[in-house]
Amino acid sequence: MSEPAPVHILIVGAGAVGCFYASKLHGIHSGRDVRVSLVCRSNYKQIAENGVQLETHSFGNYHFTPYRVFSSIKQAGDYTEGGAFKWDYVVVTTKALPDITNDALDIAPLVTRGVHGSCIVLIQNGVGIEEVHRAEFGQNPIVSAVTVISAEQIRHGVIRQNRWTRITMGTYTNGQAKPNSLLSDSTLLDQLSSVTDKHIHQLVSWFTATGIRDAEFASELSLQQTRWHKLCINASMNPSSVLSGGTPNARMALDPELRTHLHACMNEIFTTAPKILGIEFDAKKHASPDRILKSTERNTGGKPSMLLDWQAARPMELEVILGNPIRIARRNGLDMPRLQTLYALLKMAQTRKAEDANPPAKL
Amino acid sequence: MSEPAPVHILIVGAGAVGCFYASKLHGIHSGRDVRVSLVCRSNYKQIAENGVQLETHSFGNYHFTPYRVFSSIKQAGDYTEGGAFKWDYVVVTTKALPDITNDALDIAPLVTRGVHGSCIVLIQNGVGIEEVHRAEFGQNPIVSAVTVISAEQIRHGVIRQNRWTRITMGTYTNGQAKPNSLLSDSTLLDQLSSVTDKHIHQLVSWFTATGIRDAEFASELSLQQTRWHKLCINASMNPSSVLSGGTPNARMALDPELRTHLHACMNEIFTTAPKILGIEFDAKKHASPDRILKSTERNTGGKPSMLLDWQAARPMELEVILGNPIRIARRNGLDMPRLQTLYALLKMAQTRKAEDANPPAKL
Repeated sequence: MSEPAPVHILIVGAGAVGCFYASKLHGIHSGRDVRVSLVCRSNYKQIAENGVQLETHSFGNYHFTPYRVFSSIKQAGDYTEGGAFKWDYVVVTTKALPDITNDALDIAPLVTRGVHGSCIVLIQNGVGIEEVHRAEFGQNPIVSAVTVISAEQIRHGVIRQNRWTRITMGTYTNGQAKPNSLLSDSTLLDQLSSVTDKHIHQLVSWFTATGIRDAEFASELSLQQTRWHKLCINASMNPSSVLSGGTPNARMALDPELRTHLHACMNEIFTTAPKILGIEFDAKKHASPDRILKSTERNTGGKPSMLLDWQAARPMELEVILGNPIRIARRNGLDMPRLQTLYALLKMAQTRKAEDANPPAKL
Repeated sequence: MSEPAPVHILIVGAGAVGCFYASKLHGIHSGRDVRVSLVCRSNYKQIAENGVQLETHSFGNYHFTPYRVFSSIKQAGDYTEGGAFKWDYVVVTTKALPDITNDALDIAPLVTRGVHGSCIVLIQNGVGIEEVHRAEFGQNPIVSAVTVISAEQIRHGVIRQNRWTRITMGTYTNGQAKPNSLLSDSTLLDQLSSVTDKHIHQLVSWFTATGIRDAEFASELSLQQTRWHKLCINASMNPSSVLSGGTPNARMALDPELRTHLHACMNEIFTTAPKILGIEFDAKKHASPDRILKSTERNTGGKPSMLLDWQAARPMELEVILGNPIRIARRNGLDMPRLQTLYALLKMAQTRKAEDANPPAKL
């Protein structure tokens, strides 16, 4: 009996989240040889030479040597092992910045097209991130994933995981799991759903085998609901923290006027998302605005990632966290007034900050 | 026949607005000798030595020597002319900062109490500015005034008036012109209304005699309505300009998302104020949100005063422009969600800016 072929997984975006999940997936699980490679940017030299050092709360300290390390997508796209070669999974863990880059065009050199081609796994924040991929890769399986993890790259090639490991994965066909303009062929839709579901079950079994017990499968709509629910924190706390002068989360939750504002932002999502998705939030599974604020009070060290990006003058995930939700709501005839206010203010603040850093040349 | 006694007017806050109206009021009008004195702060030395130089769009260039110049309220309060002395009008033209100072307690040394005592004239922005004065001076006439003027102090003692002269004055009894808890004695209410109305007609006649043709009388409710209407600009444009990174008004009006936001802020005032005051806005007198935005598009040089204060690290009129309106609405069971968001964000941003400037001492 011949060995099953090795599985090739490529992680695009070797930051804290990408390296952590990569380090766990890489290895022999349930008899399959899972080989994880990385596309690195600023940390290429360190990781190519020394691999990745992990300091984790959940699994102790260990070292991870990727199967291959690439310095660019092009280099990874050109890779072969002497014959036909396919990246079975292309996992995207970069920040989602649709106002700056089209992720789907970026990863195109990596993707073998077709239902049985590469499976694209998107581990990114926000909503609406999958649409460009579906538009570019009409027939490929797409997995939409939401993580709950606290991890940081403390220096190039050294990753610290502080808390949590949860990764929830759902099939993405067209965001609705029923024919719509993004995927109108119902035969293909059924086939894609089934193939992608299988991929997710495969990934869940590998993660589980490595000790990540909260890797889980979700239905397409349920995964989208999880994305919207995560916005309750990201779309309220993150922009408010930047706009209020860099305020940490706990302090905002304890300030009476900001608490009123944050609660109302979350309520906009709680009332809007069910109208868009057609399913209600589940009080057992989805923390209410009150519960989120209560738990935020204790998160005294918490600085939202958007604030860190703002302070470092890096681009913020404004479009997937505020712009897309507002536009998706508008397409459904719905308004989220406070989130629209945050979006309008912060988008202009970002524009003006960039102008101040690079003033237009005087002619 | 004896000459009528001179009228003594004291302007507290000798900035651009105070000096401009002071310079016009001072003189003989309709046979009355109107003597205007100033309380100065940083510009005391220049004005005490050289008076005020005016460069005006409406009346050309001229010089104004105040009747007396004081360096403090205490000094003005101690002033006599050898016998009984009363400031007939105490005109307050300082910024309204109820979170920092109680204007009523500040001016108490200047005020002769009683219905026939000093008339207090408040030329300040925002809503709810009169309440502390009514609480402190239960029986004094209070005039609430709204100006439309573009003027600036280009250096100490030199005032430039760029455009407009309009000043609208209304009697303030208790903000409702009917008995309420602020002024529950209906006999006193009638008497105060009548005395204050007379004061306003007197002021209007003097202003008119000096060539200011748009000094005008308004009823108590109508004046409050004018204050709320002015908030459409001040409560939307000013905080949004600061929070979006210092954006001038015209650019905000031309940015699609900010325009949506500004329009909705103004709509909150258009729907809330009539419920509070019990009178509708008048399309002929009160520009609609669309008209305000249209005219803002052309105001390419316009930087809101709140932005200038923010950039100079001076306190902003946050409470009278956002805090009071929101609290007055709440007392009436009403919400203004976008204004509340602006208030919560900007109040914390102001707090944090002050903390950054004066970090707490480490023990």
